[in-house]
Amino acid sequence: MLHFEYYNPTRIVFGKDRISRLDHLVPATARVLLLYGGGSAKKFGTLDRVIEALGGRSVAEFGGIEPNPRFSTLMRAVETARQENIDFLLAVGGGSVMDGTKFIALATRYPGHGEDILLSRSKPVRLSEALPIGTVVTLPATGSEMNAGGVISHQAGKYVFSHPLVYPQFSILDPTLTFTLPPTQIANGIIDAFIHTVEQYVTLPAEGRFQDRTAEGILRTLIEIGKTTLNDPTDYDARANLMWCATNALNGLIGAGVPQDWSTHMIGHELTAMFGIDHAKTLAIIQPAAWTVRAREKRDKLLQYAERVWDLREGSEEERIAAAIGRTRDFFEELGVATRLSAYGVGAERIDDLIRALETHGMTALGEKREITLEVSRRILETAL
Amino acid sequence: MLHFEYYNPTRIVFGKDRISRLDHLVPATARVLLLYGGGSAKKFGTLDRVIEALGGRSVAEFGGIEPNPRFSTLMRAVETARQENIDFLLAVGGGSVMDGTKFIALATRYPGHGEDILLSRSKPVRLSEALPIGTVVTLPATGSEMNAGGVISHQAGKYVFSHPLVYPQFSILDPTLTFTLPPTQIANGIIDAFIHTVEQYVTLPAEGRFQDRTAEGILRTLIEIGKTTLNDPTDYDARANLMWCATNALNGLIGAGVPQDWSTHMIGHELTAMFGIDHAKTLAIIQPAAWTVRAREKRDKLLQYAERVWDLREGSEEERIAAAIGRTRDFFEELGVATRLSAYGVGAERIDDLIRALETHGMTALGEKREITLEVSRRILETAL
Repeated sequence: MLHFEYYNPTRIVFGKDRISRLDHLVPATARVLLLYGGGSAKKFGTLDRVIEALGGRSVAEFGGIEPNPRFSTLMRAVETARQENIDFLLAVGGGSVMDGTKFIALATRYPGHGEDILLSRSKPVRLSEALPIGTVVTLPATGSEMNAGGVISHQAGKYVFSHPLVYPQFSILDPTLTFTLPPTQIANGIIDAFIHTVEQYVTLPAEGRFQDRTAEGILRTLIEIGKTTLNDPTDYDARANLMWCATNALNGLIGAGVPQDWSTHMIGHELTAMFGIDHAKTLAIIQPAAWTVRAREKRDKLLQYAERVWDLREGSEEERIAAAIGRTRDFFEELGVATRLSAYGVGAERIDDLIRALETHGMTALGEKREITLEVSRRILETAL
Repeated sequence: MLHFEYYNPTRIVFGKDRISRLDHLVPATARVLLLYGGGSAKKFGTLDRVIEALGGRSVAEFGGIEPNPRFSTLMRAVETARQENIDFLLAVGGGSVMDGTKFIALATRYPGHGEDILLSRSKPVRLSEALPIGTVVTLPATGSEMNAGGVISHQAGKYVFSHPLVYPQFSILDPTLTFTLPPTQIANGIIDAFIHTVEQYVTLPAEGRFQDRTAEGILRTLIEIGKTTLNDPTDYDARANLMWCATNALNGLIGAGVPQDWSTHMIGHELTAMFGIDHAKTLAIIQPAAWTVRAREKRDKLLQYAERVWDLREGSEEERIAAAIGRTRDFFEELGVATRLSAYGVGAERIDDLIRALETHGMTALGEKREITLEVSRRILETAL
């Protein structure tokens, strides 16, 4: 097992009708900025319930945080937060709203230019303060409700940032708030949680037995409840299991003390930036191809994945690995999500552009051993056609 | 899935040679009270390394916290903490030292009588402050390093208390610090973690799929590495897996949103109080008997346990349950831990005394459905003879 630090102070409040807990969770004197996305939180009454639960607190609103939230949108929210003297941010939404809110929490209290924060991975800036955050989750997928990271779009790129100051103080996870989501967003959520898990699990053996078993438990659960929760959105237990798995897939637990990959995400980000393909759908395209290309490097963990997640014990090693990749692809397709670039009209002629974008963004040595050069990324993209 | 709140702000610092991190983890101006047990932390040099890592900080010591730490001992530490103006407690030891330190943290800042805190479950007292705590774990077992509870002995009883103020701020888990432990303590640690897990898992079905799979992962890991880490104490990875499983067995994660039992612990506490049998060894006696007596009530989860933990898929339901209980008993015995009262010279003539003790301590309706009356406890004890 590798050395690690694990720290996660977010309070999870899980269950039906827990929005009323906001009155205890948000400081009584807080000036709250409510942040949300495209309007479904308003349309389905969630915002009204949130405002009611906040009692007499001063509440301002900032709607319109888009999927793959844009730097320019978020900087407008920063202006609002400053003008209104906001001292608590409450995100009501999915990963984009939560990620965006984290950025706003840092940028509002950062005296320099907001762009510096996006570059904090490659060139750390000193961030010593952030507004406190709470979330009400309406879309189970990204795990942003219980981690300290986010992804922000700016110009032609996607920027990953993280800072311990932006762990949400609390997150309310009410599965019934997700009953009205369109199926495509649920399918995306299942795949997002699935790929978050395998990015931390299908890597190299590291004797992280608790981590491996827990990752396998998330994957098996997603497989068990995936189609149920897609077809029967009001099945409370299926949705609850999706929601809690999505959170645990990216709260640091399964990745502590083991190698991590994340190349599927990095290549996928370019597909979103260039073609506007949903984040989760890019993962469904890249992951089977990446395993096919890197079957040798990931052999031990792919065999473990085949056996423990898909019960594949027959045949040669190559056959079991191929079968596990095939099962994964079938699972995604059965959720209505395509696993080929061609399904989105992206052909071989665009691969050069994608490779250039990876190069521009410094993605020239990806994966758990940093051995995915641009040449390997090219083979992955070719395999994904 | 049941409603739940999950909150755990303890920072885990895991790996070899991490004691040096104390210099960053403990406030620079802190007046530290080091708490430890019977002297092995001193003998094997751990205390010296801790003091060195604390640099020039003011450090006082309080040794001699015994197994099943006694109220009277801990109140002496409270006196020391007050006299020395201590503002940080650093526990170096196992569950007893950590549990005792949590009590000291509360009692030092509590203006009333320390006994009130022991009764905080039945008659809550207002505890608004506690000294901050850090731990350096030398014995993987109780999970106390990442939870907010403790068990304290007082007069003829054991008292369970918990308070969110006593989550350790950090816990250093260095598997190599446990290499010198005697085998009996390692066997106890394995069993303690195992029973913590089943008290939260072998209950009633509740559609907590992540929780179940994670619990099963801990149990399978303990079975896989149990004998290895007992026989080869310097196998780093085996010991690391024991340590991390023991922490996760009782940090709130696997118990969130599912029913919990804890009757084996409550009955076991009487065996420790009356006969001085090690805590973990009482659990190994009571658990197989409790499952035998309550096989009907726990049928669904015992069958799941049989299949997913022991791969038992053949035979009738009764046969599979009996086989799973037998395998559990064998596992404990193979670790050198007896699973019968008779092994400790306790015969049928003492059962009346034990039942009276349970009654005195209010343990008249135990288990996940509160259906373990004194009569059921009697049958469990008879079955455990």
